[in-house]
Amino acid sequence: MRRVTLYDTTLRDGAQAEGVSFSLEDKIRIARKLDELGIDYIEGGWPGSNPKDMEFLQRSKEYGLRHAVICAFGSTRRAGLSAAEDSNLRSIVESGVEVATIFGKSWDLHVEHILKTTLEENLEMIEDSVRFLRSHGMRVFYDAEHFFDGYKANPEYAIQTIARAVSGGAEVIVLCDTNGGMLPHEVTPVVERVKKSFKDVKIGVHMHNDSGTGVANTLMGVLAGAEQVQGTMNGYGERAGNADLCTIIPNLKLKMGIDCVSDEQLAMLTKVSRYIDEITNRRPNPCQPYVGRSVFTHKAGVHVNALLKHPHSYEHIDASLVGNRRRVVVSELSGASNIRYKARELNLEIQDGDRIASILAAVKDLEYQGYSFEGAEASFELLLRRSLGLHESLFELEGFRLTIDKKGSNGEPVSEATVKVRIGQDVIHTAAEGEGPVNALDNALRKALAQVYPEIRNITLTDYKVRVLDEGAGTAAKVRVLVESTNGVESWGTVGVSTNIIEASWRALADSIEYGLLK
Amino acid sequence: MRRVTLYDTTLRDGAQAEGVSFSLEDKIRIARKLDELGIDYIEGGWPGSNPKDMEFLQRSKEYGLRHAVICAFGSTRRAGLSAAEDSNLRSIVESGVEVATIFGKSWDLHVEHILKTTLEENLEMIEDSVRFLRSHGMRVFYDAEHFFDGYKANPEYAIQTIARAVSGGAEVIVLCDTNGGMLPHEVTPVVERVKKSFKDVKIGVHMHNDSGTGVANTLMGVLAGAEQVQGTMNGYGERAGNADLCTIIPNLKLKMGIDCVSDEQLAMLTKVSRYIDEITNRRPNPCQPYVGRSVFTHKAGVHVNALLKHPHSYEHIDASLVGNRRRVVVSELSGASNIRYKARELNLEIQDGDRIASILAAVKDLEYQGYSFEGAEASFELLLRRSLGLHESLFELEGFRLTIDKKGSNGEPVSEATVKVRIGQDVIHTAAEGEGPVNALDNALRKALAQVYPEIRNITLTDYKVRVLDEGAGTAAKVRVLVESTNGVESWGTVGVSTNIIEASWRALADSIEYGLLK
Repeated sequence: MRRVTLYDTTLRDGAQAEGVSFSLEDKIRIARKLDELGIDYIEGGWPGSNPKDMEFLQRSKEYGLRHAVICAFGSTRRAGLSAAEDSNLRSIVESGVEVATIFGKSWDLHVEHILKTTLEENLEMIEDSVRFLRSHGMRVFYDAEHFFDGYKANPEYAIQTIARAVSGGAEVIVLCDTNGGMLPHEVTPVVERVKKSFKDVKIGVHMHNDSGTGVANTLMGVLAGAEQVQGTMNGYGERAGNADLCTIIPNLKLKMGIDCVSDEQLAMLTKVSRYIDEITNRRPNPCQPYVGRSVFTHKAGVHVNALLKHPHSYEHIDASLVGNRRRVVVSELSGASNIRYKARELNLEIQDGDRIASILAAVKDLEYQGYSFEGAEASFELLLRRSLGLHESLFELEGFRLTIDKKGSNGEPVSEATVKVRIGQDVIHTAAEGEGPVNALDNALRKALAQVYPEIRNITLTDYKVRVLDEGAGTAAKVRVLVESTNGVESWGTVGVSTNIIEASWRALADSIEYGLLK
Repeated sequence: MRRVTLYDTTLRDGAQAEGVSFSLEDKIRIARKLDELGIDYIEGGWPGSNPKDMEFLQRSKEYGLRHAVICAFGSTRRAGLSAAEDSNLRSIVESGVEVATIFGKSWDLHVEHILKTTLEENLEMIEDSVRFLRSHGMRVFYDAEHFFDGYKANPEYAIQTIARAVSGGAEVIVLCDTNGGMLPHEVTPVVERVKKSFKDVKIGVHMHNDSGTGVANTLMGVLAGAEQVQGTMNGYGERAGNADLCTIIPNLKLKMGIDCVSDEQLAMLTKVSRYIDEITNRRPNPCQPYVGRSVFTHKAGVHVNALLKHPHSYEHIDASLVGNRRRVVVSELSGASNIRYKARELNLEIQDGDRIASILAAVKDLEYQGYSFEGAEASFELLLRRSLGLHESLFELEGFRLTIDKKGSNGEPVSEATVKVRIGQDVIHTAAEGEGPVNALDNALRKALAQVYPEIRNITLTDYKVRVLDEGAGTAAKVRVLVESTNGVESWGTVGVSTNIIEASWRALADSIEYGLLK
């Protein structure tokens, strides 16, 4: 079985997308997830361009990755300088990672009109730069920028640039359609020509989606012999984005019989795709092939009827292979089995069909209001326990009041919260300040509960997320707050929804603490 | 020059998408727009399935279409019935349009397991149904449902189904990848085989996007000889959607040299795409090839610098050919050329290199704090104008106070804001309630400013987004708020960042209103 290696550039090329910007912590979390998914190479960033990327790369041994190899990105040296004098190349060496991926010019137009140097000097720059990195013990992948455009304009020169990267010691030559303008049928002859000319080196492809064919171009490259595929998760990337690995991976594995990730890893695909959207704060695309919420959803009556007779009649693959699931708009059966399934997971066997139906109705009503229990299983468990009469609240809110006071246009506002809760017979009334109103409320609530439940001190809040649901409603919009907490041993997520961000935060907070005290 | 006809099924297959539903008025408006764009055939609906579609078709002569021909959709007759007795076929005739498009089964599995009839009866059904419609004077396009899957399973039977549609008098045979499972290289040999076997009839292709290759599969079909292309605007459709005509049209015309729409019509593409999203109430996809808001947007400093030297260096086509435009965003990845480019866009020529450097430093510092000007060009313009001494604030905040008061665990919290602003010599002090604290603050500020700037009533807030930046910091995390507003003519985005969500919202709100009053 033929194998192709997967090279992810979500953290570098993906970060070029409009509206995408990763914190250091985001990058670490995404890298860990990509490693679990079975990605072979992770392009971590451009150490010469900003200190955050350098820090991410230098600390990469701490992340405990089991499989993925971290790569540092950069360009060939500047014209008229030695490689050793080039700060961008030196940063790559200083990043301390195993693989350097550097891009160089393949297109004579770019050499002469953008770099404004000679064709010969560009060839030297490529060979020098690769050799310099090799001499520092790094493996080098060479990204041939604009290779397809360059090949169209001046095929012999484009081939020469590759020859020089190979002489310098590059391990993989990556043919890039940087402008994303190629169509699938144009890819094949170019990749075949390069394969034939360079037999001792691996060939990769790096496609963009400006013609809407980023995935197809990648597959055509693989059919023509490419051994490495570059792309990004969910197709993040500049302009129309990069080729989407979430589509490429199942196409390779399920349709082309090409080995890349394991079956178990493939079954994580939908979860990983959504997780990365969540971290990036991007709304998942419901129509994203394989992993979107709608892509195994059936609306037409004839289709639903046919599916009941034969599962493949209107589905190209079994959704569970990629961790997705079939949905039928209107059907309640799938919902009930879901509740039963979840309850069983929590060791709460429910026999009673009526009770399941009423829980299902409650869940559907909450989801209609904007709740989502996907990242908030603790809220779902509390809902189940309450519905089954298995849970008594540990505290009762009598009320809270928040004030936020700002003086002058440059003054920092001061937030103060007062909270009144009843625990059994006792009413406890506390006040606290905080970094903002929600933090003040959190502090006041903890102060109150700590008097009866000192173990609350072990519960810390680790994550707080806000999503505006009906953005078009402006400042009167509904918001969903997701909170994640930990007691040092396990962590759990809770959710709250309201048009009032304070109320939504309160609900998620209260559930989070209630659940933590229960454990 | 070779010509391909365009067949749009937005109003029928597009309406199968989850969340899409068109009123009669919507359908009429979309049909008129498609006609202007130069679409040749518009599938108007399934008259046998609902009265709205029947009405749309029967009234279609009133719409004043100049070029497009309206088609009615339906299926072949039921098994064991004559065509004349089939109500679905009779409805097509009663719709009064010129073209009937009917689908029939190509895949033996579907015939035997879904229709539960014999392979021979299915062939009769196809020929009968086409002949019946022809006998009523209609032109007939035959959609061969699941043709590619059927051909894989039983090629000779699949070819026979087409032979019978041709015998019945079909004018076009449309090969459908109904499940969307095909990859581009699988399309070519099948289309070529059909072309060779049926020389006197036109061949069309109808692709879905479940493998992420709907557009590519369509183009491969055209390269293999297809003369008609079916698709939907913006790729609307069941599951992962249909092949997107907004991507196919420019690919055909600009890259494959195939005639379809005129240059003037092509230049309407971006507008038509957004118009249809607007009617459908779908958020336009910023990364949609050719027509998305981000697809000619540049963020990396090296790219912007290169574009200033040579327009094709990082763009596959000239954006104006499809009615789109280039945008440059300012971010931590950008350099001085981005600032210079943006300033020029705003008619603020800055000659002084030092001033550009100091603005760039200010932008990078703000971005380090968590600001992002990508979706907040109005905040960036205010920043530029303030740095250049070109802007005096229209109002000065003296202070605000917010209280959020909740009684009991089920009580809805009440939010009240007071705002004190100075405008010239006047100090205005107002109070208001709202749906939540930010809405209350918004209301109080507007009340204050309306006394001096009554035009504030024309400014409405259309979008409000919250992003928690350092999520790990829990409720003490920093948040970024993006606000979008409009005065009915243009719209603009602003941004605010703080650990206090109220303060972050205030900053975005204040900029938004300041900018709106400036315009």
